[in-house]
Amino acid sequence: MRQSQLFTRTRRDNPSDEEAKNAQLLIRAGFVHKEIAGVYTYLPLGLKVLNNIVQIIREEMDKIGGQEMVLTALQDKEPWIKTDRWDEKKLDIWFKTEFKSGGETGLAITHEEPITRIMTEHITSYRDLPVYAYQFQNKFRNELRAKSGIMRGKEFLMKDLYSFSKDESEHEAFFVKAREAYKNVFRRAGVGDRTYVTFASGGIFSEFSEEFQTVSDAGEDTIYVDEAKGIAVNKEVMTDAALEKLGLDKTALVEKKAIEAGNIFNLGTRFSEPLGLTYMAEDGEKKPVVMGSYGIGPTRLMGIIAETLSDEKGLVWPEEVAPFKYHLVSLGNDAEVLKLADELYEALEKNATVLYDDRDTRAGEKFADSDLIGIPYRINVGKDALATGSFELVTRATGDVSKLTREELLAR
Amino acid sequence: MRQSQLFTRTRRDNPSDEEAKNAQLLIRAGFVHKEIAGVYTYLPLGLKVLNNIVQIIREEMDKIGGQEMVLTALQDKEPWIKTDRWDEKKLDIWFKTEFKSGGETGLAITHEEPITRIMTEHITSYRDLPVYAYQFQNKFRNELRAKSGIMRGKEFLMKDLYSFSKDESEHEAFFVKAREAYKNVFRRAGVGDRTYVTFASGGIFSEFSEEFQTVSDAGEDTIYVDEAKGIAVNKEVMTDAALEKLGLDKTALVEKKAIEAGNIFNLGTRFSEPLGLTYMAEDGEKKPVVMGSYGIGPTRLMGIIAETLSDEKGLVWPEEVAPFKYHLVSLGNDAEVLKLADELYEALEKNATVLYDDRDTRAGEKFADSDLIGIPYRINVGKDALATGSFELVTRATGDVSKLTREELLAR
Repeated sequence: MRQSQLFTRTRRDNPSDEEAKNAQLLIRAGFVHKEIAGVYTYLPLGLKVLNNIVQIIREEMDKIGGQEMVLTALQDKEPWIKTDRWDEKKLDIWFKTEFKSGGETGLAITHEEPITRIMTEHITSYRDLPVYAYQFQNKFRNELRAKSGIMRGKEFLMKDLYSFSKDESEHEAFFVKAREAYKNVFRRAGVGDRTYVTFASGGIFSEFSEEFQTVSDAGEDTIYVDEAKGIAVNKEVMTDAALEKLGLDKTALVEKKAIEAGNIFNLGTRFSEPLGLTYMAEDGEKKPVVMGSYGIGPTRLMGIIAETLSDEKGLVWPEEVAPFKYHLVSLGNDAEVLKLADELYEALEKNATVLYDDRDTRAGEKFADSDLIGIPYRINVGKDALATGSFELVTRATGDVSKLTREELLAR
Repeated sequence: MRQSQLFTRTRRDNPSDEEAKNAQLLIRAGFVHKEIAGVYTYLPLGLKVLNNIVQIIREEMDKIGGQEMVLTALQDKEPWIKTDRWDEKKLDIWFKTEFKSGGETGLAITHEEPITRIMTEHITSYRDLPVYAYQFQNKFRNELRAKSGIMRGKEFLMKDLYSFSKDESEHEAFFVKAREAYKNVFRRAGVGDRTYVTFASGGIFSEFSEEFQTVSDAGEDTIYVDEAKGIAVNKEVMTDAALEKLGLDKTALVEKKAIEAGNIFNLGTRFSEPLGLTYMAEDGEKKPVVMGSYGIGPTRLMGIIAETLSDEKGLVWPEEVAPFKYHLVSLGNDAEVLKLADELYEALEKNATVLYDDRDTRAGEKFADSDLIGIPYRINVGKDALATGSFELVTRATGDVSKLTREELLAR
């Protein structure tokens, strides 16, 4: 894409109403726009990143047998009453409103209730199990504070997968697969090296749930990391008894701030029982379906990447999530140089995604914008390229510079 | 995909709480699930169709220079107050709710206000214009009645493009392009032959707006069609004066029921003026930006296709929107037949999308399900295929049957 056509502009100044580094950088670089605290519009560059993250997650969920669907924001209160999660005293993060046709509704804070109800129409026998269904859908949470940019929103995109299994052993087998799929997601998104499987409070069904925590100074959680084992424990369950159960040695643990990038919950029969999701087992007995839920917020993950991989110059996108692979920058106004840049753009664009800074702007401003936007590879096209026939390729993450011919660039 | 793995089931009975044919069929075939009147979940087959429609629209919007972004559901009331559309007395379809952190918010009924406000940060000079930005985003409308299935929802997906131009002539040039892009969308979605550019009330800026109306007995609108010219007039503007302006002859018009599949509005400076979206013109004068809006509801379009192209047996999807191209159906339990079907499935799937009905179910039930689901081409694999080496290919829309060898099938 030609940058002269991109409608967004960068800005030099930090927005005065943003504390979080991820939001400051994303707003300055023109990736997002803040509508209300915790509520962000995704501008063209931001949507490209978000879609890349969504695609990574989709591929990994499909690989483990997930079937994609999409539930609704407006909720029927009936199933939530049955599970006792409608009452404001029990769950105080609802946005509730009224139908003009009569009756109350709320904006989905999560989707266990409606998906469990849907499954009662499709699952009746052991032959129908297991089922793995997931979606990308906005969640709405009426949070009192929203100071973490796109890492914690009042409206945010969530990938939630729900598993429906015959029994605990079938559930456990999938749980293990989902954990590996999650590791793949974080690795492909560029934060695998700083994201730990972390034991946290299990809540409903099992003693522990599993979180994926990414180490970050901006994190709201405290975790204790065993680097050698590559796992961690959330402070909330950090007791001697828990450590013993998990086989961890207190002296090997290092305290870190971290942000929750994903989670996996054993739900057991917490939702299937009150909502009547049962199946006929092979022995003819009617049994409740065993459920699990598996969440990753693509918008939050985008925020985590922006927060943890950026530097003082701006954003630094890993290749698989970057809005473009190359940032081609023409330098100066020489007609021959511009022609060379145009030609390279047309050739490169056939096999790679390219943002072409064809604007009539000073080189220094173009470089500053390029560093702020954070595309993985910048290609400089100036008079020296014209003279030598080779182009400067700058790697954003490391600052490494190499010289490549046109043929070498196209062969990359 | 193997149908034995698909978690949804078809049902023979019409849901008792649905009047609209589109919703009855889509629910019976397992494409959607009704959560609340006017609020539907998209199950795996339904989401595939919806995504295909979205992709068609995306391609056509990109071709005319659209830049994709995504705005928010939760709305800041400030810009809506400035345009006088926040007040319930002016617009009575809002869902409004409160932030726990204080203040009122509403769910987006449309997005002129927030996108105009965003553009004030990016458009300042004539050099920044024109801009065409679009999104796919849920809209929420607190309708009193919702009896048209997914053709009119309280929560529904909308593609809305907004154009920002220097003046009326620049606006008009794009308006013409957008009209052609819309025609492409409806043609590719299979309803081009029954969808008419229809002159309707212009509302704000110009005398007429343009609607795209698809002829359907289930339509809520009445239009007068000039078949020869391929255009129509909405009843709401059907006056002698209007016909004269449009150069139409009353005697050539035929009255039809129709449903609005898309619309194009001249917004003029209705939003740019109150929200301060101005630019510096070449002559140094500050001028308000001239806007247009261009809507197509992908969920509504899916409903229109289901409503108008179905028959007494079920849904009939045009090839480009169908959830799969082929429905491969194995007949009987013969091990050789099943092996043949398995092999054909693996081979076909490399180059086409295939739903493979590998269930241990009677042939009659499989055929009825196949007709209900409405995939364009059914391939029957039974004992005769084993004997003759050729397969029956049934075209869903026409019922035409042809015999093809494996090689001919793979070459299609």
